[in-house]
Amino acid sequence: MIDYRSDTITRPTAGMLTAMHDAPLGDDVFGEDPTINALEEKISTLFGMEAAIFCPSGTMTNQIAIKCHTQPGDEVICDKLSHIYQYEAGGIAFNAGCSVRLIEGDRGRITAKQVIENINPDDVHKPVSTLVSLENTANRGGGSCYDFAEIEAIRQVCEANQLHFHLDGARLFNALVAKKETPEQYGKAFESISICLSKGLGAPVGSVLLGKKEFIRKARRIRKVFGGGMRQAGSLAAAGIYALDNHVARLAQDHLHAKLIADALAQKDFTGNILPVETNIIIFEVKGRFTAAQLAAKFLENNIRVIAISPTQIRIVTHLDVTESMVQKTIDVINSL
Amino acid sequence: MIDYRSDTITRPTAGMLTAMHDAPLGDDVFGEDPTINALEEKISTLFGMEAAIFCPSGTMTNQIAIKCHTQPGDEVICDKLSHIYQYEAGGIAFNAGCSVRLIEGDRGRITAKQVIENINPDDVHKPVSTLVSLENTANRGGGSCYDFAEIEAIRQVCEANQLHFHLDGARLFNALVAKKETPEQYGKAFESISICLSKGLGAPVGSVLLGKKEFIRKARRIRKVFGGGMRQAGSLAAAGIYALDNHVARLAQDHLHAKLIADALAQKDFTGNILPVETNIIIFEVKGRFTAAQLAAKFLENNIRVIAISPTQIRIVTHLDVTESMVQKTIDVINSL
Amino acid sequence: MIDYRSDTITRPTAGMLTAMHDAPLGDDVFGEDPTINALEEKISTLFGMEAAIFCPSGTMTNQIAIKCHTQPGDEVICDKLSHIYQYEAGGIAFNAGCSVRLIEGDRGRITAKQVIENINPDDVHKPVSTLVSLENTANRGGGSCYDFAEIEAIRQVCEANQLHFHLDGARLFNALVAKKETPEQYGKAFESISICLSKGLGAPVGSVLLGKKEFIRKARRIRKVFGGGMRQAGSLAAAGIYALDNHVARLAQDHLHAKLIADALAQKDFTGNILPVETNIIIFEVKGRFTAAQLAAKFLENNIRVIAISPTQIRIVTHLDVTESMVQKTIDVINSL
Amino acid sequence: MIDYRSDTITRPTAGMLTAMHDAPLGDDVFGEDPTINALEEKISTLFGMEAAIFCPSGTMTNQIAIKCHTQPGDEVICDKLSHIYQYEAGGIAFNAGCSVRLIEGDRGRITAKQVIENINPDDVHKPVSTLVSLENTANRGGGSCYDFAEIEAIRQVCEANQLHFHLDGARLFNALVAKKETPEQYGKAFESISICLSKGLGAPVGSVLLGKKEFIRKARRIRKVFGGGMRQAGSLAAAGIYALDNHVARLAQDHLHAKLIADALAQKDFTGNILPVETNIIIFEVKGRFTAAQLAAKFLENNIRVIAISPTQIRIVTHLDVTESMVQKTIDVINSL
Repeated sequence: MIDYRSDTITRPTAGMLTAMHDAPLGDDVFGEDPTINALEEKISTLFGMEAAIFCPSGTMTNQIAIKCHTQPGDEVICDKLSHIYQYEAGGIAFNAGCSVRLIEGDRGRITAKQVIENINPDDVHKPVSTLVSLENTANRGGGSCYDFAEIEAIRQVCEANQLHFHLDGARLFNALVAKKETPEQYGKAFESISICLSKGLGAPVGSVLLGKKEFIRKARRIRKVFGGGMRQAGSLAAAGIYALDNHVARLAQDHLHAKLIADALAQKDFTGNILPVETNIIIFEVKGRFTAAQLAAKFLENNIRVIAISPTQIRIVTHLDVTESMVQKTIDVINSL
Repeated sequence: MIDYRSDTITRPTAGMLTAMHDAPLGDDVFGEDPTINALEEKISTLFGMEAAIFCPSGTMTNQIAIKCHTQPGDEVICDKLSHIYQYEAGGIAFNAGCSVRLIEGDRGRITAKQVIENINPDDVHKPVSTLVSLENTANRGGGSCYDFAEIEAIRQVCEANQLHFHLDGARLFNALVAKKETPEQYGKAFESISICLSKGLGAPVGSVLLGKKEFIRKARRIRKVFGGGMRQAGSLAAAGIYALDNHVARLAQDHLHAKLIADALAQKDFTGNILPVETNIIIFEVKGRFTAAQLAAKFLENNIRVIAISPTQIRIVTHLDVTESMVQKTIDVINSL
Repeated sequence: MIDYRSDTITRPTAGMLTAMHDAPLGDDVFGEDPTINALEEKISTLFGMEAAIFCPSGTMTNQIAIKCHTQPGDEVICDKLSHIYQYEAGGIAFNAGCSVRLIEGDRGRITAKQVIENINPDDVHKPVSTLVSLENTANRGGGSCYDFAEIEAIRQVCEANQLHFHLDGARLFNALVAKKETPEQYGKAFESISICLSKGLGAPVGSVLLGKKEFIRKARRIRKVFGGGMRQAGSLAAAGIYALDNHVARLAQDHLHAKLIADALAQKDFTGNILPVETNIIIFEVKGRFTAAQLAAKFLENNIRVIAISPTQIRIVTHLDVTESMVQKTIDVINSL
Repeated sequence: MIDYRSDTITRPTAGMLTAMHDAPLGDDVFGEDPTINALEEKISTLFGMEAAIFCPSGTMTNQIAIKCHTQPGDEVICDKLSHIYQYEAGGIAFNAGCSVRLIEGDRGRITAKQVIENINPDDVHKPVSTLVSLENTANRGGGSCYDFAEIEAIRQVCEANQLHFHLDGARLFNALVAKKETPEQYGKAFESISICLSKGLGAPVGSVLLGKKEFIRKARRIRKVFGGGMRQAGSLAAAGIYALDNHVARLAQDHLHAKLIADALAQKDFTGNILPVETNIIIFEVKGRFTAAQLAAKFLENNIRVIAISPTQIRIVTHLDVTESMVQKTIDVINSL
């Protein structure tokens, strides 16, 4: 079975498993797990940010950030397709009591101009605009990457309007590799960044939230109240360290694989619009002979798993567990359909 | 000064003031205010609904309804322009912890088809779709009225999908008069209805929430926790009773006034698109010579107050305190601009 | 019927009704109701505080204050019997997401020492101690009054520990009259004060929240999201102004009435401990021949209404609508039981 | 260093590490991690309950249970010392919007009679009593165990009053071993049970929540919104399975160790009251020569870590990583003080 449903499904490699097995452990609720401490130190240094906190998931790091930046009755500005609105179980309202201002962006990416237009006036009828949250790469935008100049422009709008500025960087390393950008650029631009270790990087579990010391101190409280404080979770952190050391540069391969598959799809009559493939995600319209569900079923008959994300759209995600030969087999299947 | 900013600004008439002065009073927290009890009885009978509760505002009746129909983590389906999302201070998230699914309706009105398309699948990543809320007339739709057949179609979608069904009827009596509909139709269609006494009806304060007995019992708890339980508020309820007895049929006059003013506006070069005037609200685009703010200022120079609701839109609302001669004067001013 | 259930049950006097009838009105959501503005100005001047906001109830003024002083996850320190914990429908948690630290005070009054002992350490397992809330007079303490020196000591603890300091002054004027204190003292001691107009003062509806300008600005947002923003509520505010002008000094009479009734009760074998009667509330234990419910029933047979607040306790509250002859009749009934 | 601060600090044994390393993995968000599925199956079978869900911490399993059983504005009845109130960062209010009714129990254990006395009447001023939560063993009660007959009596009160019934069984296996009870008894008595794998059982991370299928389905939503959904967390689940297979019976040894240490303490003049040692926790008063902090410092000079849980109390917890010789050394140190 070749599984393209998500880059979350990767299993640890042998080297990663050994790192997990050998990790020194301690009680992280007491701040005493040396491997978690090492991971938090490593990643905050990488981004040039003051502090970091390890959490069980990217949903938790995003939700903690939203909660720490806001108060109930505030409003979060984000793209309509963003993960924080679409896939976090309504957490913006549930956990933070905040409203959303949903922007129709371009493949999941919003502009500084749109942010300005969506800041509420000072009026008791309106929530207080408090936070702008970007997603890079944007999952539902087909792995699209921001132009860093636009990020910088949005940062200036935030500063001028006293808005907090968060990045859902679940797949930020894909963007860094694709656009040849550096973690430091992002560490300077954002107040807080969430990084997933369990997506393209291939660790089994975990995300890290980055920010200023005081912010991360607040984040520890929120992690506690969500029940995200784990004890000897150093084995998971060891996988994260291993991933940062070994699985970043190779993301270029996932991107190449995605392009090859997209090229094959582009030849087929059942393929409608394919969102530009910038990283490891392909989102394309299905037309003519098949519905999205039918085409997904066809793939499954050939031992290939993809997800129909809407009645007319399929998503394919390449990752660490997808080899060159699997990609070739996939292209053969596409050609044969 | 002729004030078209809102139909909320009306002052009680002499007859209403006398009714307020003479109202028998008691402690409503003990359920002992005879005038409040009479109002709740009168209006629930009018709509053929089981029970009613008097509250200080339409925001409170809407917010109570949303809270009673949902749990945190649920999702409310409504038009993008609806009052509950646009003008209630983020209460859907603040008070109820709920997400919103915002629909691009037609002048504030959504369709059964749109509701179906926006019900979430049973997926832990998604909030639970629980409540559909309509607004009739739709304020930001320019006082637009629903076609009752569409309401009936939406009701059936709600029933088939176990969605609760609420009406923000802040200006429902305007719709009833304009469309020659009856309260009973609405009482049958909706699980809960919020009626404002202080808009077109001309009472100084208050709204009533209607629903089943058990629902209103829950509503009393939520009213209490918001601090909306008032003591001897019977004088306000007396104004409501007076309004229901004396100020319903006359809404036709407000509608006529609105049409006359719209007709005058339509002749002017600075007037862009005017939303169809179905009731007592005129919303029109300002173009060419003026911005909306500049045109509002021109009106003010002539002792006429209107509101620029966006950089390019002005809203004019007719009401009980606007007389025929004021309308004539307004038309003269428009002609002179 | 002589009704001692609560001082909330008073009905407006003829003078008050005239004041209500004649009050100039406007739309308070636009800040344009002259009578509400006058009340807010009058009472903030009286207490020497910067600003005030008129609300439909004392529950709302307390809940707004709690919300404005805290964030979810904070902890409120208060007496175990306090109204904010006992009678506001769980609003501390519902509206503000805050925990409570409940202190066993002396008749509803806590000490500076107790406050110190109940401040949480800086530990992620614990909520953040943020707010101390007192109640004066303390309803469930039998109308007990704080010693002002203790309030001053608590204020200093709050300042030293960065705790906000709120007063539920629902019956503060009873304390002022009983202890010969001034509003100014209280205005200096507390960051926020809630004053009820509809208890001892005899207005039909409403409370006022006092604080700094910035605090009241925040309070207006929270009032809006609760739905507490009323339109032409000036008639209610007129009653409040009338009450402040005419019903303060006479509270001494209510206090005298309460003492006379308590003295009569003290002679009876069915009377257990009577909490010291400092103002207009009598809380006493029922023993021997009657349960509290039975004794309340006996009173009712004699056209006197009292409340059994627990299986063994009765509460009697004197107020504006209780005349000297009613008190005499009550004493006669007590003697006859 | 001998570390008695908590039984959470244990590190995985070699056998457990091997089990973790070799565990088959999958994406648990898709329900495809075979080891997590096996753990959930194993533990629900053990308790004779329908379903289970694996979470990162006991705080999360408790908080999910509280949220699933309640709605905002409800009230949770529990002992004043219970972990859910004392050590979960105010989550009852933060996550669930619920009030607490805190009972003064006997060493952390409440009675059926107390539950009855603390159920609120049907009154809008009061939160709705909805959930009773017990803790067995009770951490702050010094590892005290419930008498099962009392649990059964409370269960009946809950049934008669439509109250949900949850067990914080963070250390339930200690109680089962100490009282020779079975998981099945508890599975029948409670609607939901939280079991910690990372306390006495010695796994590095994780807790399991047990309940009916429908309840666990709801729990998956709440786990998602908290961000507790982990991907390939099977290695942690493998440690849990290993712990259930290998670390239950040996808890008797921890209990014996605790008794031996308590006996030594009882001989010393600085020891005040020692709470009865029923399981693996010793809580004792410090008096005379030392404050609790000073005595803890004395222990530390001798390479023994204990926690001063209040100015006058010390807590010592025995666990998997405390050997017989360590206990002997500890007793020698105590004797020498």
